Amino acid sequence: MYKINDNYLKLPGSYLFSGIAKKVREFSEANPEASIIRLGIGDVTQPLAPAIIDSLHKAVDEMGAAETFRGYAPDLGYEFLRSAIVKGDYASRGADISIGEIFVSDGAKCDSGNIQEIFSLDNKIAVCDPVYPVYVDTNVMAGRTGTYDSITEKWSNVIYMPCTAENNFAPEIPEETPDLIYLCFPNNPTGSTITKDQLQEWVDYANRVGAVIIYDAAYEAYISEDNVPHTIYECEGARTCAIELKSFSKNAGFTGVRLGYTVIPHDLKCDGVSLNSLWARRHGTKYNGAPYIIQRAGEAVYSEAGKAQLKDQVAYYMNNAKVISEGLKSAGYKVSGGVNAPYIWLKTPDKMTSWEFFDYLLEKANVVGTPGSGFGPSGEGYFRLTAFGSYENTLAAIERIKAL
Amino acid sequence: MYKINDNYLKLPGSYLFSGIAKKVREFSEANPEASIIRLGIGDVTQPLAPAIIDSLHKAVDEMGAAETFRGYAPDLGYEFLRSAIVKGDYASRGADISIGEIFVSDGAKCDSGNIQEIFSLDNKIAVCDPVYPVYVDTNVMAGRTGTYDSITEKWSNVIYMPCTAENNFAPEIPEETPDLIYLCFPNNPTGSTITKDQLQEWVDYANRVGAVIIYDAAYEAYISEDNVPHTIYECEGARTCAIELKSFSKNAGFTGVRLGYTVIPHDLKCDGVSLNSLWARRHGTKYNGAPYIIQRAGEAVYSEAGKAQLKDQVAYYMNNAKVISEGLKSAGYKVSGGVNAPYIWLKTPDKMTSWEFFDYLLEKANVVGTPGSGFGPSGEGYFRLTAFGSYENTLAAIERIKAL
Repeated sequence: MYKINDNYLKLPGSYLFSGIAKKVREFSEANPEASIIRLGIGDVTQPLAPAIIDSLHKAVDEMGAAETFRGYAPDLGYEFLRSAIVKGDYASRGADISIGEIFVSDGAKCDSGNIQEIFSLDNKIAVCDPVYPVYVDTNVMAGRTGTYDSITEKWSNVIYMPCTAENNFAPEIPEETPDLIYLCFPNNPTGSTITKDQLQEWVDYANRVGAVIIYDAAYEAYISEDNVPHTIYECEGARTCAIELKSFSKNAGFTGVRLGYTVIPHDLKCDGVSLNSLWARRHGTKYNGAPYIIQRAGEAVYSEAGKAQLKDQVAYYMNNAKVISEGLKSAGYKVSGGVNAPYIWLKTPDKMTSWEFFDYLLEKANVVGTPGSGFGPSGEGYFRLTAFGSYENTLAAIERIKAL
Repeated sequence: MYKINDNYLKLPGSYLFSGIAKKVREFSEANPEASIIRLGIGDVTQPLAPAIIDSLHKAVDEMGAAETFRGYAPDLGYEFLRSAIVKGDYASRGADISIGEIFVSDGAKCDSGNIQEIFSLDNKIAVCDPVYPVYVDTNVMAGRTGTYDSITEKWSNVIYMPCTAENNFAPEIPEETPDLIYLCFPNNPTGSTITKDQLQEWVDYANRVGAVIIYDAAYEAYISEDNVPHTIYECEGARTCAIELKSFSKNAGFTGVRLGYTVIPHDLKCDGVSLNSLWARRHGTKYNGAPYIIQRAGEAVYSEAGKAQLKDQVAYYMNNAKVISEGLKSAGYKVSGGVNAPYIWLKTPDKMTSWEFFDYLLEKANVVGTPGSGFGPSGEGYFRLTAFGSYENTLAAIERIKAL
């Protein structure tokens, strides 16, 4: 008789955003007249930039003619996209990354969930707390996290690095030595980030103790301050200890288009075994490439027209961030984030729990946010709002919250 | 110090098709004048059907306007596509499958590689021999296959079910009881298939011993004979023992478009735990949906115009299959397949090994095929050609082979 992977049964509740969607759906069915504004899930709302639309149409036409039709893509992605990435995201920042170190994928969620597969099940992970739930959940599914304590809401075999107002939402080097360190800056969910000097300390630490940093830079395009690194490879020594995950979802509005990439430098080796070659093997065996037309859309992100249009799009969302941040502050909320990231992180009022505030906001203002506790125990008492709504909806949501 | 997943190091050589691509690239660089015809990897060559192109353009336009823009897709796929699948592939065949049992994905390769993740590492798999290498390789990576014997080319903890000329390429119920049984009909690589009565025996067996059948029906559109099942759910009792994997790659030319789906009936349970809910959890945590525009392309496959155009496309490839099959027979080869599948399976001449014949064909005829031994030890001495080339190339390749 077959058996299931019972690590799945250890997972408490449903995946955070699936759970929120269900709750909103039920509220909406019970209150069909309510005009709900969603500032919960980090989903973009602005249409794709014209340069990207043009590129998509052109690629679709190519797929309709025998001479230009494309079947299976190269395992690691088309060279036109990988070279645009190297030039646009690395060479331009003085970071030494080559085409052979870029793996194109269908998004950073998949990559951040799958990357743990190339590591031993004995490895111990360290995560910021709060954090994007995919890092921990996928390690739970793999069987790497021990047992769950429903009181502390912690896994016995995970190293938590609290990020709270007390440490300015920047994790400290943990006492216990981890094998894999998940870092995400600008951070989801807190919207905070760290300086290049602070990141350099992490790189030095990882090299010293023999850990790998899995660096999620999905929100890099939202950085507005000068001393904040755009890629971990700006730091000295990152090529021997860091994997970087990048997404097109937030910088180019690709949440429904699906494109991302992972960088694994050839210098990243474990006892002589290249992690780049392990990931190449996984990519070649369990994945079959992003669609040709989508990879062409990705290429357009790096065109001159694309870059200009997307700069405006990011500015649009960051104006929303300002509206949220200033509106909440004027209403007396304690707020952080929103400067180098599209996320605003607020302290719930009146000692409400995160979920109490979720229900309160949904019922009284018909506004959907994300409970901070969904991102980890140290997120309790916090709440995340995103800047990805339309300007009109964002303004309306803040007016409703201010009126409460 | 971190450690890698050393199961990866057990994998012999590279992924089959990556290895072939490398060999062909090297030959091509050394012989730039050679006009190579590729009948190796099962990659389509005909352009997307007009109904699909129209649908893609329309969806691209929707993504360019704020009112119709779509962000994250629903976890399990858009309802418009899932209901088209239920109607077109199941209700039409009297198979009782509902929308909640369909999971849209970016292709059957990913699904067939990922599906093992929801099962215990203690489970023992059974595979046809020869077989699509992804089934075994992904179980190796997970650590489920024991040790590899380089002499027999077998894994110690895998049950092999030989499919050779002796048993008409149909696997027999194994002596040892497996937990997971991978079946693929019409078969890749042999191009053979089994009747509905034969498949019913497998369903009855799986229910009796408590095994799950992972049924890969990627080539279903190529079935031309009446008594061959189009889905395993045509069999009585399949809802309690079978998962079905489907692809748009071969029936609609989507190898570079990337779309597939998995069916897990709600009745498939292990000690009361629904496998449908486990896969939903995996989908929601490690995956983020197929692109909206690609899901619209998938919907067009089921439109009246799409169906008519794709029927012609399948007929085009099956005419190639006939050209290959008859050409090889007239040249004295022993050939099977090519009737209900786009693959032709031939016995190598003069006791050549599969790879010897690969080199011989590449060097002497500049034709690329796939060595049978790449699909498993019982594939040794066989060779696969695919019908997915253009008619002109297929004809030319066969003329070259006949002239040897």
